[in-house]
Amino acid sequence: MAAELTAQQLTTQHRPTLDRALEAIRTRAYWSPHPEHPKAYGENGSLDLPAGKAAFDALLGTRLDLGQPGTDDWVGGETSPYGVELGVSYPHADLDALLPAMRAGMRAWRDAGAETRAVVCLEILKRISDRTLEFAHAVMHTSGQAFMMAFQAGGPHAQDRGLEAVAYAYAEQVRTPDTAEWTKPQGKRDPLALTKRFTPVPRGIGLVIGCNTFPTWNGYPGLFASLATGNAVLVKPHPRAVLPLALTVQVARQVLTEAGFDPNLVALAAERPGEGIAKPLATRPEIRIVDYTGSTEFGDWLEANARQAQVYTEKAGVNTVIVESAGDYKGMLANLAFSLSLYSGQMCTTPQNLLIPRDGITTDQGPKSFDEVVADLARAVDGLLGDDARAGGLLGALVNPGVKARLEAAAGLGEVALASREIAHPEFPDAVVRTPVIVKLDGAKPDAEAAYMSECFGPVSFAVAVDSASDAAELLRRTVREKGAMTVGAYTTSPEFEEEVREVCLEEAAQLSLNLTGGVYVNQTAAFSDFHGSGGNPAANAALTDAAFVANRFRVIEVRREA
Amino acid sequence: MAAELTAQQLTTQHRPTLDRALEAIRTRAYWSPHPEHPKAYGENGSLDLPAGKAAFDALLGTRLDLGQPGTDDWVGGETSPYGVELGVSYPHADLDALLPAMRAGMRAWRDAGAETRAVVCLEILKRISDRTLEFAHAVMHTSGQAFMMAFQAGGPHAQDRGLEAVAYAYAEQVRTPDTAEWTKPQGKRDPLALTKRFTPVPRGIGLVIGCNTFPTWNGYPGLFASLATGNAVLVKPHPRAVLPLALTVQVARQVLTEAGFDPNLVALAAERPGEGIAKPLATRPEIRIVDYTGSTEFGDWLEANARQAQVYTEKAGVNTVIVESAGDYKGMLANLAFSLSLYSGQMCTTPQNLLIPRDGITTDQGPKSFDEVVADLARAVDGLLGDDARAGGLLGALVNPGVKARLEAAAGLGEVALASREIAHPEFPDAVVRTPVIVKLDGAKPDAEAAYMSECFGPVSFAVAVDSASDAAELLRRTVREKGAMTVGAYTTSPEFEEEVREVCLEEAAQLSLNLTGGVYVNQTAAFSDFHGSGGNPAANAALTDAAFVANRFRVIEVRREA
Repeated sequence: MAAELTAQQLTTQHRPTLDRALEAIRTRAYWSPHPEHPKAYGENGSLDLPAGKAAFDALLGTRLDLGQPGTDDWVGGETSPYGVELGVSYPHADLDALLPAMRAGMRAWRDAGAETRAVVCLEILKRISDRTLEFAHAVMHTSGQAFMMAFQAGGPHAQDRGLEAVAYAYAEQVRTPDTAEWTKPQGKRDPLALTKRFTPVPRGIGLVIGCNTFPTWNGYPGLFASLATGNAVLVKPHPRAVLPLALTVQVARQVLTEAGFDPNLVALAAERPGEGIAKPLATRPEIRIVDYTGSTEFGDWLEANARQAQVYTEKAGVNTVIVESAGDYKGMLANLAFSLSLYSGQMCTTPQNLLIPRDGITTDQGPKSFDEVVADLARAVDGLLGDDARAGGLLGALVNPGVKARLEAAAGLGEVALASREIAHPEFPDAVVRTPVIVKLDGAKPDAEAAYMSECFGPVSFAVAVDSASDAAELLRRTVREKGAMTVGAYTTSPEFEEEVREVCLEEAAQLSLNLTGGVYVNQTAAFSDFHGSGGNPAANAALTDAAFVANRFRVIEVRREA
Repeated sequence: MAAELTAQQLTTQHRPTLDRALEAIRTRAYWSPHPEHPKAYGENGSLDLPAGKAAFDALLGTRLDLGQPGTDDWVGGETSPYGVELGVSYPHADLDALLPAMRAGMRAWRDAGAETRAVVCLEILKRISDRTLEFAHAVMHTSGQAFMMAFQAGGPHAQDRGLEAVAYAYAEQVRTPDTAEWTKPQGKRDPLALTKRFTPVPRGIGLVIGCNTFPTWNGYPGLFASLATGNAVLVKPHPRAVLPLALTVQVARQVLTEAGFDPNLVALAAERPGEGIAKPLATRPEIRIVDYTGSTEFGDWLEANARQAQVYTEKAGVNTVIVESAGDYKGMLANLAFSLSLYSGQMCTTPQNLLIPRDGITTDQGPKSFDEVVADLARAVDGLLGDDARAGGLLGALVNPGVKARLEAAAGLGEVALASREIAHPEFPDAVVRTPVIVKLDGAKPDAEAAYMSECFGPVSFAVAVDSASDAAELLRRTVREKGAMTVGAYTTSPEFEEEVREVCLEEAAQLSLNLTGGVYVNQTAAFSDFHGSGGNPAANAALTDAAFVANRFRVIEVRREA
């Protein structure tokens, strides 16, 4: 069958976007080809708001047949954190049939070359972008994110991260030329002359192990980095967040088919409840790359046991914000209140420990005691979330009962500066919606350490009283070194203290946001410009996205002969 | 103390060389700044032949005091494979004193930036280059290489590989700009604007575990890749090949001092006989990078156990040459004879298994039976090594008694097509010099498999009779997949068979040389153009040198703030 989409067509259509992405990762200035407002969708074949909702509703209760070989059963049964039974079933794979089928198309995919692979990936991303508003509902009803966040983070921002990975993968593969003529002078004798041909070759099958909270945003970098470097990709979604990645796989398979490639280059591995296929899957010899987002425990297990594979992990960390002084006290409170509230603190980048000198801080509003800072922050959060409808749109729903249990337990860890409040969701009465709790701890008391030195995933933060700013910097250092951190924030008007915190972050390899008071938050990173994680502290062994994230997903094979 | 060498001086002097190296790794055309003939040395401050010999002689029996902190003893006692007692002693380190001292200078080294680090590394390489003829003797009398090879491979070629690593390290670090202005439009509202600063930060201390046979060639890529990316580097030489790396450390410390940096950024860890410091050292928390060349057993141990570090290993493999047909039979025999003889087959790249169809092959000299091919190859080796003086200059000495034992045992594995011959070294009567043995094996007989499917390091090759060319390709595939390979060679006039072998090499990630009949040999690779190993088969988890070899030796830390 002739391909419906030729490489040339795809190149003509997508090469300008690829070039623009390559420029963006070089300059790291702002850029995105994916609109960030729902109103931007609905033209040029993309779904508008009602059509997106209708498309999502039409999926409920259906069997999502991806046409995968080796399907031996149908599994599924996600329940939305908003209480909706999705009722979608997915193919369950006989791996001994599926994995060989996935390898069958790899030679043609390899021979297609880096540029064709890149533009096919860009076509996949374009088709996903066209269905962004449908994906938004799928992300919302698996992660518990509020709609606007599910739309933005699960749609354009995730697509940006996928495109960024494609750009890095492409750039990396073309750094070595396809061919070289090598001529070495030999004095009076004839020179030695060789013709060399260099081919990027894939490692094998890449496994993407998805997470519950950001199935697309955290899944796309590994998926597209592996695919763009010539590997096949098997997607193992979190059992409670299958739909967004199953739809992704469906789109990828469709585009691969239309472009004349084997659709089995991308496949889904859904599992039965409690089946636990990630461990046996990650250690199969066919799996040569693993991308994982989730718990430290399982990430560490993968790093130790999936030895046949390159393993890229994003695990848990303890994120710190130091409040040493403030040049814009109100801006700081507003910014922090938003950071703590967004998606009920269920981001790997949400601050947990707020380190504040026990003797208080200086601000543009005059000196503030430790208690005043904490009370003012509590008030800021309260103000932000005072209106239930608005609060629901920011908080989303708690993703699972474990988060609710941790939230409830947190109130017993210290003095509650801000109690968590239950919010009734206007549309989904079964949704568990809670405002954040802020608990005061004394950093000098050893019994408090067990709390603030562990990740308490969810809407829980600790206002930790420290003896001094330098004490805060040292606690930051110890926290990053021992527990890892995806983000660090600091508020200070002191150039000396800024330098002290910066030095800690450089030495412990943590990404630092300074004095954020406006519309950018410490828990957000932008593709093409910000690195997500550093790959240099225990929270993650890779950064999204840099050259190290892609350079070892393929190898370059040289064939040389005399010229 | 003001630096004697300013960054500006070094940049003026070395930036053109760095730029030329950056161009070379992009085009992969021939280039080297390091002359390959001894006569090229002796001007511009470099040592000429007699001065190089005198400098080496002056080292014998001395204590090489590197001025390292934490030196608690003096150790040494290398005996040259040529029988000379070197009698050089080296500092033995108290690691609890040395490692902290090595970290002390890292901040200034990090803050110096990628370009300054690169030009300091280039100055180190220049000083080494100036002493190439002294290093040649040090390499010869530790590795057992003949003088010309010790000079070339241990001198200019090793320096090339070091420079290549610096170029890759530099290129990788400057892919992200130092700063970026990020401005995100917000419709009618003011744009969001951030200023971002990006800093490459080192991982910690890199450990280079040297090998006996190519202390500089295999040691320099890791050493310079780690140093150029801001890490400190501790060099743990092979106990029988300390001197070349100790001199390297000495030069590096001198240049670092003159350039105003802490000399302890580079240090030596020599050990007592049987002390076995590599294991405890490689697993210390300060060690964040390990570069290793040596046995598969210890390489695998490092990969499994030095989990706190990035581990780059070059281990053992079984290298294959397939002889399917020959367009230049005599050229093939001459080329193969040289490959088998060079340094007595003690290169990780020397062919071991010669796969030849049992029904013979077609050649430009008419059809040749299996036995004829093997006999003609034996004759070619005999002819190449017929003159003892010439033979000694090509073979060098056996590096250790294990090689001699394997060589002697190999004669019992099958029918000896070419017996090994003892050669008296004219200058060093204690040198153990042996010509290669060629043993015939039947690939169809299971008892032969134990021989040809194991690495038999040394001057041993197996002429393996296979049922067909496709049988050879399949055995090649299995050998690379199970045992790994640093090199693959093939001789064929058939485009179809060439494609078959190429496909095996692409799928199993092995570097392929086709139909070499002239002055380039399958066991040689040239820096800036050829990759040494692929990093994709069991022989090595990294290639020398590509982006993956350097990209994870540092991380990029971002500090962002509102503009």
